[in-house]
Amino acid sequence: MPALEVNPDLQKERNTATFDPKEFSIFWAGGADKYKEKKALEKMFLEDPEMKDDLPTSYLSHKELYENSLRKACLIGEKIRKLRADGEDGVDTYNALLGGSLGAAILKEGNPISLHYIMFVPTIMGQGTMEQQVEWLSKAWDCEIIGTYAQTELGHGTFLRGLETRADYDASTKEFVINTPSLSAYKWWPGGLGHTANHAVVVAQLYTKGEFRGLAPFIVQLRDTETHMPMPGIDIGDIGTKLGMKGVNNGYLGLKNVRVPLNNMLMKNQQVLPDGTYVAPKNSVLTYGTMMFVRCALIRDTAQSLAKASTIATRYAAVRRQSPIDPKEPEPQIMEHTTQQLKLFPQIAKAIVFKTTGDGIWNMYNVLSGEIELGNLDRLPEMHALSCCLKAICSADAAAGVETCRLSCGGHGYMDCSNFPTIYGMTTAVCTYEGENTVMLLQTARYLVKVYGQALSGDQLVPTVAYINEAIKQKEFVYFDGSLESIVKAFQFVAANKVRVAYEQIEQRRRQGHSTEVAANLSGVFLTGAADLHGRAFLAQSAYTELMAVSRQVSPALADVLMVVLELYLVDACLNRIGDFLRFIELTDADVTKLEVRLESCLKRLRPNAIALVDSFDLHDRVLDSALGAYDGNVYEHIFESTKKNPLNKEPVNAGFHKYLKPFMKAHL
Amino acid sequence: MPALEVNPDLQKERNTATFDPKEFSIFWAGGADKYKEKKALEKMFLEDPEMKDDLPTSYLSHKELYENSLRKACLIGEKIRKLRADGEDGVDTYNALLGGSLGAAILKEGNPISLHYIMFVPTIMGQGTMEQQVEWLSKAWDCEIIGTYAQTELGHGTFLRGLETRADYDASTKEFVINTPSLSAYKWWPGGLGHTANHAVVVAQLYTKGEFRGLAPFIVQLRDTETHMPMPGIDIGDIGTKLGMKGVNNGYLGLKNVRVPLNNMLMKNQQVLPDGTYVAPKNSVLTYGTMMFVRCALIRDTAQSLAKASTIATRYAAVRRQSPIDPKEPEPQIMEHTTQQLKLFPQIAKAIVFKTTGDGIWNMYNVLSGEIELGNLDRLPEMHALSCCLKAICSADAAAGVETCRLSCGGHGYMDCSNFPTIYGMTTAVCTYEGENTVMLLQTARYLVKVYGQALSGDQLVPTVAYINEAIKQKEFVYFDGSLESIVKAFQFVAANKVRVAYEQIEQRRRQGHSTEVAANLSGVFLTGAADLHGRAFLAQSAYTELMAVSRQVSPALADVLMVVLELYLVDACLNRIGDFLRFIELTDADVTKLEVRLESCLKRLRPNAIALVDSFDLHDRVLDSALGAYDGNVYEHIFESTKKNPLNKEPVNAGFHKYLKPFMKAHL
Ligand SMILES: Cc1cc2nc3c(=O)[nH]c(=O)nc-3n(C[C@H](O)[C@H](O)[C@H](O)COP(=O)(O)OP(=O)(O)OC[C@H]3O[C@@H](n4cnc5c(N)ncnc54)[C@H](O)[C@@H]3O)c2cc1C
Ligand SMILES: Cc1cc2nc3c(=O)[nH]c(=O)nc-3n(C[C@H](O)[C@H](O)[C@H](O)COP(=O)(O)OP(=O)(O)OC[C@H]3O[C@@H](n4cnc5c(N)ncnc54)[C@H](O)[C@@H]3O)c2cc1C
Repeated sequence: MPALEVNPDLQKERNTATFDPKEFSIFWAGGADKYKEKKALEKMFLEDPEMKDDLPTSYLSHKELYENSLRKACLIGEKIRKLRADGEDGVDTYNALLGGSLGAAILKEGNPISLHYIMFVPTIMGQGTMEQQVEWLSKAWDCEIIGTYAQTELGHGTFLRGLETRADYDASTKEFVINTPSLSAYKWWPGGLGHTANHAVVVAQLYTKGEFRGLAPFIVQLRDTETHMPMPGIDIGDIGTKLGMKGVNNGYLGLKNVRVPLNNMLMKNQQVLPDGTYVAPKNSVLTYGTMMFVRCALIRDTAQSLAKASTIATRYAAVRRQSPIDPKEPEPQIMEHTTQQLKLFPQIAKAIVFKTTGDGIWNMYNVLSGEIELGNLDRLPEMHALSCCLKAICSADAAAGVETCRLSCGGHGYMDCSNFPTIYGMTTAVCTYEGENTVMLLQTARYLVKVYGQALSGDQLVPTVAYINEAIKQKEFVYFDGSLESIVKAFQFVAANKVRVAYEQIEQRRRQGHSTEVAANLSGVFLTGAADLHGRAFLAQSAYTELMAVSRQVSPALADVLMVVLELYLVDACLNRIGDFLRFIELTDADVTKLEVRLESCLKRLRPNAIALVDSFDLHDRVLDSALGAYDGNVYEHIFESTKKNPLNKEPVNAGFHKYLKPFMKAHL
Repeated sequence: MPALEVNPDLQKERNTATFDPKEFSIFWAGGADKYKEKKALEKMFLEDPEMKDDLPTSYLSHKELYENSLRKACLIGEKIRKLRADGEDGVDTYNALLGGSLGAAILKEGNPISLHYIMFVPTIMGQGTMEQQVEWLSKAWDCEIIGTYAQTELGHGTFLRGLETRADYDASTKEFVINTPSLSAYKWWPGGLGHTANHAVVVAQLYTKGEFRGLAPFIVQLRDTETHMPMPGIDIGDIGTKLGMKGVNNGYLGLKNVRVPLNNMLMKNQQVLPDGTYVAPKNSVLTYGTMMFVRCALIRDTAQSLAKASTIATRYAAVRRQSPIDPKEPEPQIMEHTTQQLKLFPQIAKAIVFKTTGDGIWNMYNVLSGEIELGNLDRLPEMHALSCCLKAICSADAAAGVETCRLSCGGHGYMDCSNFPTIYGMTTAVCTYEGENTVMLLQTARYLVKVYGQALSGDQLVPTVAYINEAIKQKEFVYFDGSLESIVKAFQFVAANKVRVAYEQIEQRRRQGHSTEVAANLSGVFLTGAADLHGRAFLAQSAYTELMAVSRQVSPALADVLMVVLELYLVDACLNRIGDFLRFIELTDADVTKLEVRLESCLKRLRPNAIALVDSFDLHDRVLDSALGAYDGNVYEHIFESTKKNPLNKEPVNAGFHKYLKPFMKAHL
C-alpha cells in the first residue's frame, strides 16, 4: 500500500494539542539518552525485513506459528550476540527484546527462547556457585545450550512445597536420580520446554541419605545437543494451544530415573556433599528478592499493555464517526460521546500512573537490594507485601482496561487485525503467572493484619503502612474537602479501616474457637478486600507524589496536562471504590454527585490532549500492529488491506464449495 | 483412552449432595418432555462420528477451520432436512442446533450457515409480501440457496441511518442499481458472507425518482449457483481471523452497479411501484419486535455461557487440591478456600437467575406479541427499554463471569483444552452485536428519564418502572431489615434515585443553556449508571419472583437449595453496588459488614451442593468440551490426553531445530 496521508481528523487533534508529545516521550523512555537508544534499537530490529511477517501470525496453524517463532527467535539471538560482542547489550536491551514492546513487535505471540535469558541464565547466576557459573554460564551466554526453568507441575503451581518431582542422591555414583513419580508430577508450563530447550533447571524435592531436605534446583540435560532427540528417561512435548502467548512453546516434562552428576545441583545456597551430607541454606529470605524483582518488572509491563491498548482505541475514537449527538448535526468523532471518554481516558491515566509507580517501586527495590547485601532485611516483608498486591491490582486492572478499550471499538475491536486479542492474551496471563492474583492479595493481607495488631499495641509501623497508625488515632475522617491530597488521605483512611474489619473478623472467628488459619480462610473476602485497598491507597499516593514531581521538572504546558491526568486518575479511582469511601467516611449523595460531575469535567479537560498523550507513549506502528491504531489513522484502508492477506481470499471459490456445499444445496433437486 | 472411573473427590461431592440433580435438570430443560427431546437430539447429533473432530479446532489454520466448519454445517443441514421431512423441526431444535449448546458442541467456533436460518429466512418471512415469500422461502428452506443478512458496514454499525450502501430505482428497466460508493460503505461482518452464502438480504438507502426514501432490504444474488463465482460487480471475501466465532466466515461485500429486479426489494412494509412511486410503511415500530425477540434470546444464551463456565470451574475446584489451609493438614480441594467459593458460586447463581429471567422475559414477549397483533402497542417502549438494558447487563456480567471462572483454574484455565478461551470469545461477542452495550444502556436511560419526568407530573407509570412512583412518594428508604424482600425493594429505591440524579443532571445542563441532546451526552455517565441499576433492580425482582415460584413447585430438598441460591444472588448483587446503596439508604459500616458475613455464610451453605447444582445444568461432555470440566473429573488425564493430539508432538524433533536452532547454537563453535 502506498504511504497514506494522515487522516484529517487525527491531524486536527495533533494540531490543536496544547503540549509537545515529544517532551513526554523522552520522559516516558527514561530520558534523552534512553530515548535515543530506543530509537536506534527500533531501527536495527524493525527495519530488518527478516523480522517482518508477510502473513499475520493469526493465520498460521500452531505448528507453523512455532516454527516461525523459532526462526525469528534465533535471528534475535544472533543480533543479541552481535550487540554483546560490541559491548552494547545493556539490561534495557534485554528488557526491550525479551519482555518489552520491541520483542512483542517481532514475536507478538512470545519468544520460545526468552526463558533462556530471563530465567535459566539468571537462576544459574543467582543460585550457582562460582565454579558452576564458570562451567555453565559461558555456554549459556553463547547459546551453545538453550535452557528453561521447570518448576510448575501439572498438579502444583502455587503451593511449591507440594511439588512431587524428586531427586534422590545416590552416593555410590555421586549422582541424583530424578523422577516424576506420577502424572500430576509432570513439569507443565515452562516456556520453550516443548521442542526448543535442550537443558532445564528442574526444581525437585531433594532426598539425601533417605531424608527429605526441601526443594532444590538441578540442571538437567533434556535433549541431545547434536540430534535434539530427548535424552533417555525424558518424556517431553508442547502442552498445546492457549489463549495467548501462542509462540512460547510451553512444554511438559516427565522424568524417569534420570541421573545427573552431583555437581548439577545448584549449590550456592545449600549443599550436598559427596557422601550425601546435606548443608542447609543460611538464609531463605533471599529468594524473595528475585520474586520481588520480577513482580516489579511486571508492573511496568502492565503499564505498557494499557499504553498500547489505549493508543489504539483513542486513535480509533478520533477517526471513527458514529451517531449524531444532536440529530440535526453530522456524526461526531466517537470520542465526543462522554461515555466513550469514560472508557478511554482512565486507561490512559492508569498507563501513566502504573508506569511511574513501576519506576518508583523499581527504585525502592534497588535501594532495598543494596540494604539486603549489607545484611539489613528490615524492609523485606513490607516490600514483599507491597509488590504482591501491586502485581495483582495492576495486572487485573490492565487486563480489564485492555478489554474496555477493545469493546470501545465496537465490532472492529473483535477482529485480530485490531491486535486487541493478542494484547489481552499477553496481559491477562500476568494475572496468573509469577503468583496467582488471589494468592498474592492474601499474602499482602496476612502482612497487613499482622501489622494492624502491632499498631494496636502501639508500635510505630514502617513507611508504607504507617497510615494505619494515623487511622487508629483519627477514628473519624474529617478532612474530605475534595482536594487531591484529601483523596489520597481518604484512600489511606479507608484502607486502614478495611484492614481493621479484616482483623476484627479473624479475631472474632478465633474467639469462636477457630484456629488462626481457619479464621483467616473464613475471612478471605475481607482479607482480599483489605489488600486491594492497601494497594490502591499506595497507587493513589504514588500517583500524587510522582506526577507532582514530574510536573515540577517539565514545561508548564505538559505540567498542566499531567495535573489533569492526576485528577482524573484519583477521582476515577475513588468512584470505583465509592462503596468503601461511603462506608467509612461521612459523605452525602451530593458529595458523590459532585465527584461524578468532576469526573466528567476531567474527561472534558483531557479531551483536547487525548491524542497527543497517546502519541507521546511513542509506540511504533509495528509495536501496535493494529489496523485501528496506526499513526496515520487510515483505519478503513488498513482493515481492508489486512483482508487481502487472508489465505481464504486468495481463491474466489473455496474448495469446500465443491466438496460440501454444492452437494448439500443440490441434494433436493 | 479407556473409560475412567469418576474422580473420588467428585464422586464424594455427588454422594453427599442434598437434592437430586435430575429434578433440577428437568426444570432447566423446560419440563419432562423437553428434557426427553433434548436427550434424543444429543443422541442423534453427538453420537454421530462424523460430527466429531479428531483434531481440536484450535490446531487448525483459519482456512482449515473454515473448511471443516463448512463440512459439518452441511451435515447439520442434512439432518435438519430429515427432521423437517419428519415434521420434527420445532423451534427448540433450531435453537439448540444453531445458537444453542448442541450447535456449540459440534461447531464450537460457530456455524457459517447459521445466519441463513436465523436471519435470512426470518427476514423474508417478516418483511416479504406473500408473493415474495412463496418465491423465496421454499428455495431457502430447502437450502437450494444459502443466504445471509448484510446490514453493518465498515463505517457504520450502530447508526443505521448512516449506512452508505444505496439502491437507486431505475424505472426504465424496473431494476434497482445497488452500490457501495466508498470503502467505508462495504458491508462488513455478516456471518457466512465470505465464501458460503450465494444470496443476501442487503440493507441499503433507497432512492426513487431521485428522492431519498429511507432504508430498505433487498435480496441480492452474490454468487453463481452453479460455479459459486462472485456475480458481476460483487467484491466479496472473508474479513479475517477474530477473537472468537472463528468458523463463522464473517464476510465483506462491495457492490458496483449491481442490478436487481424491482421484486427483489422486500415489500411487506413499504413499496416501490413500477413507476417509482414510493409507498411509505404504516408503522415502523414493528421492527422493534424482532430486535426485542433476538435480545430476549440472547439473555438465555448468556445464562448458558455462565452455566458452562461455572460447571467447568466448579468441577475443577472439586478435583484440584492446592495450598493447605492449616499447614498441618493436607492440601484441600481448592473449593474449600473461601475466596474460591466467591469466584464460583455467584456465577452459578447468575446462571440460574439469568435463565429464569430470560424465560420470564420470553413469556412477557409472547404476551406482548399477541397484544401487538391486536394493535395494542402500549407496552412496546417499556419492554424495549427493558430488553436493551438486560441484554447489556447479562452479556457484560456473563463475559466477566466466564473470565472469573477461567482465572479460578489458575494456569490450566489458560490452555485451550479448558475450553474457556472459546466460551469467552462467544460470550463477549454478545456485548457488541445486536446493539452495542453502551448504546443499549443509553437507550434504556433515555426512556427512564422520560418516565421520570412523567412521574414527577403525577402520572402513574407502567409496571416495570412503577417503582419510580413509589420512590418519589417515599423520599427515604426505611425498610432495610436485610430480608430478601427488602433487598429487592432497596434495589428499586436505589434505581429510582439513580434515575432522579440523571434526570436532574440533564435538567441542570439544560438550564445552563445546552440542548436536550447535548445535556444528555454530557450526562452520559449518569445515564448509563441509571440504566444499569434499573436492569439490576429488575433482575433482583425477577430472581425473587421466579425462584420463589419454582420453589413452591419442587421437592423441599431442591427448594431449600434454590433459596440459598436466591439469597446468594441478592446479597452478592447488593454488595456489588454497595456504593449506590450507601449513597441513597442509611446504612452503617456494621450493616455492610453484616452483609459481607452473610455472603460468606451463603457460600458456606451452598458449598455441599455446588457440584450437584452444576451437574443439574446437564451439560453433555461434548458441550463442555473441556479437559478441566468433564463429568468424570479426571482432569490431569484429560489434559495429558489432549497433548497427544497436538501435531507438534507427533515428531520428537521439530524441523525448526535443523533449520534454525542448530545453526544458531553452533554458530560460535
Ligand atoms: C502463560 C503462562 C506461562 C507460564 N510459564 C511458566 C514457566 O515458564 N515456568 C513455570 O514453572 N511455570 C509457568 N507457569 C505456571 C504458573 O506459574 C502457575 O500457573 C501459577 O503459579 C498459578 O499456579 P496454579 O496454576 O497451580 O494455580 P492454582 O494454585 O491451582 O490456582 C487455582 C485456584 O486456587 C486458588 N488458590 C490456590 N492457592 C490458594 C490459597 N492459598 N488460598 C486461596 N486460594 C488459593 C487460586 O486463587 C485459584 O483460584 C505459567 C503459567 C501461564 C498461565
Ligand atoms: C462477532 C460479531 C458478529 C457480527 N455479525 C453481524 C452480522 O451477521 N450482520 C451484520 O450486519 N452485522 C454483524 N456484526 C456487526 C455488529 O452488529 C456491530 O459491530 C454492532 O452493531 C456495533 O456497531 P459498531 O461496530 O459500528 O460499533 P460503533 O457504533 O462504531 O461503536 C464504537 C464505540 O462508539 C460508541 N457509540 C456508538 N454510538 C454511540 C452513541 N449513540 N452514544 C454513545 N456511544 C456511542 C460505542 O459505545 C462504542 O464504544 C457482528 C459483529 C460481531 C462482533
